[in-house]
Amino acid sequence: MSAVIRVGIAGYGNLGKGVDAALKQNPDMELVAVFTRRPPNVVKPLDDTVPVLPMDKVQDYQDKIDVMILCGGSAKDLPQQGPELAAMFNTIDSFDTHAKIPEYFSAVDNAARMSGHTGIISVGWDPGLFSLNRLIAEAVLPDGATYTFWGKGVSQGHSDAIRRVAGVKNAIQYTIPVEEAMNRVRAGENPELTTREKHIRECFVVAEEGADKARIENEIKTMPNYFADYDTIVHFISEEELKMNHSSMAHGGFVIRSGKTGANKDTTNIYEFSLKLESNPEFSASVLVAYARAAYRLNKEGKVGALTVFDVPPAYLSPKTGAELRKELL
Amino acid sequence: MSAVIRVGIAGYGNLGKGVDAALKQNPDMELVAVFTRRPPNVVKPLDDTVPVLPMDKVQDYQDKIDVMILCGGSAKDLPQQGPELAAMFNTIDSFDTHAKIPEYFSAVDNAARMSGHTGIISVGWDPGLFSLNRLIAEAVLPDGATYTFWGKGVSQGHSDAIRRVAGVKNAIQYTIPVEEAMNRVRAGENPELTTREKHIRECFVVAEEGADKARIENEIKTMPNYFADYDTIVHFISEEELKMNHSSMAHGGFVIRSGKTGANKDTTNIYEFSLKLESNPEFSASVLVAYARAAYRLNKEGKVGALTVFDVPPAYLSPKTGAELRKELL
Repeated sequence: MSAVIRVGIAGYGNLGKGVDAALKQNPDMELVAVFTRRPPNVVKPLDDTVPVLPMDKVQDYQDKIDVMILCGGSAKDLPQQGPELAAMFNTIDSFDTHAKIPEYFSAVDNAARMSGHTGIISVGWDPGLFSLNRLIAEAVLPDGATYTFWGKGVSQGHSDAIRRVAGVKNAIQYTIPVEEAMNRVRAGENPELTTREKHIRECFVVAEEGADKARIENEIKTMPNYFADYDTIVHFISEEELKMNHSSMAHGGFVIRSGKTGANKDTTNIYEFSLKLESNPEFSASVLVAYARAAYRLNKEGKVGALTVFDVPPAYLSPKTGAELRKELL
Repeated sequence: MSAVIRVGIAGYGNLGKGVDAALKQNPDMELVAVFTRRPPNVVKPLDDTVPVLPMDKVQDYQDKIDVMILCGGSAKDLPQQGPELAAMFNTIDSFDTHAKIPEYFSAVDNAARMSGHTGIISVGWDPGLFSLNRLIAEAVLPDGATYTFWGKGVSQGHSDAIRRVAGVKNAIQYTIPVEEAMNRVRAGENPELTTREKHIRECFVVAEEGADKARIENEIKTMPNYFADYDTIVHFISEEELKMNHSSMAHGGFVIRSGKTGANKDTTNIYEFSLKLESNPEFSASVLVAYARAAYRLNKEGKVGALTVFDVPPAYLSPKTGAELRKELL
């Protein structure tokens, strides 16, 4: 291996912390600096010799950082930071607002091309490894259907939606895949599944004192887009119970494709990929770090502009040489 | 999409037949000719207008075929055909003699580079998609262990080994993964598993009339490399029963990695990939065809020499454009 890859982290929430930890598992990379929009003194990287700097000092590090890993959110941070940082660094991000990916890709692509950098967008597990499996499964089994199931795990978007209901103090929402639906897919039935048939939504709600729980439950269950199309279960619990039993960051899911092969297309083949994660942010961070290695290498080879996981040769994710990979893993 | 990709098949056994069928599922590709070492008149492609030619006519097709898919065996056919055909065509093959991959890679690489072709070797599901998952899983979870389980499915090598025992007329051997071992892996135990703990070998044997079945059973169960290290079950059945109940080409398997993340490496994440195939050769053929598309495109871009699944950007497997992939599958 050549010189150590110098990495920066932009944003130090759960994902940024996960990147810090993941970098320590990859001896070919090192953390050079953390950039934050919070007061730098409240941010504590694992190694206290790593400088924490305000985001507006980032341009001073252009010669000191090979890849910047963006750990901000898709709603507010990345639409601005993605293109801005891709103008200064090779970047990795986990942009996951599906409808806006084309627009975001284009913005990062322009910035990265102009400055000769490489920006891999929408990295993580979904979008990310799940996307990769949807692509490969469809390419090798063109006559078939792909199903993505998520969970069991917390959906931040749905938890936030519950918190906006009047009388709700706090809430956590779990997305749970319906086992029966998964088994029908695995049996090669290629079922038409409604939203309701694929996932259950289970909510743990802390109500404000004196709030009308029946009304809250009804408002949640009938909320359009978020809950109305699902079987939704609502439990009212205390704040203490929420903290104690519902702070896990576990998540996971399944990509399953069932496809037909053969001259008469009467042979069934099932392709399945799944993740069971005790920590969603730590695993996502680990994926970002592997793609940071790829971004560094692709940029060295002159591959500039925005890319996604679809564009990265898998060998670039590993610190091993081609010969090692062929010998040990092929 | 540009012009249709013109494909040749070299070798028309079960795998070649599968490629023929798979090409019909991919409208951006067409079968131009089949090459065989058997008398051409005994080989019948799905479309009877497709010419079947003796292997030594292959050089006449250099301008008519964009990618040659090699469907011969790894023991005898590919070591010779791989480099020979890579000197004339872009190639795809399913070379699976693990110990000889470095040597084979090098031979195909030399031939392909000299002639400006692209040869993707060891394509299929293992080696192939399983290798890809071993690589990605290890890259994203560096602290962990990867386990590959095969089956339930027929092992040709083990079936052949039984057929070489004196007094055996015919035989089929199934490799069966041990569910308990898989569940320990899925539970994140990272167990040290012996060969015996991972797979069971179940044999269906047709004995010659008057043969000593006890001796045959003992010879099978104590056969070094093939059976001695396993729990082996031997059933004696009739030739009719073998034909009727044991002609399935089903196979499959699992790649599971359990890896730790977090600052204290105390968070467990499970990565699992599995295939459940009603037809091993048809599915393998489908993978070959997707990689044929990639070989064609990579060659157009000037990427010459031998490659493996590790080197191919996944987007190259799909007929969809980058924008379509980002919109539909990311």
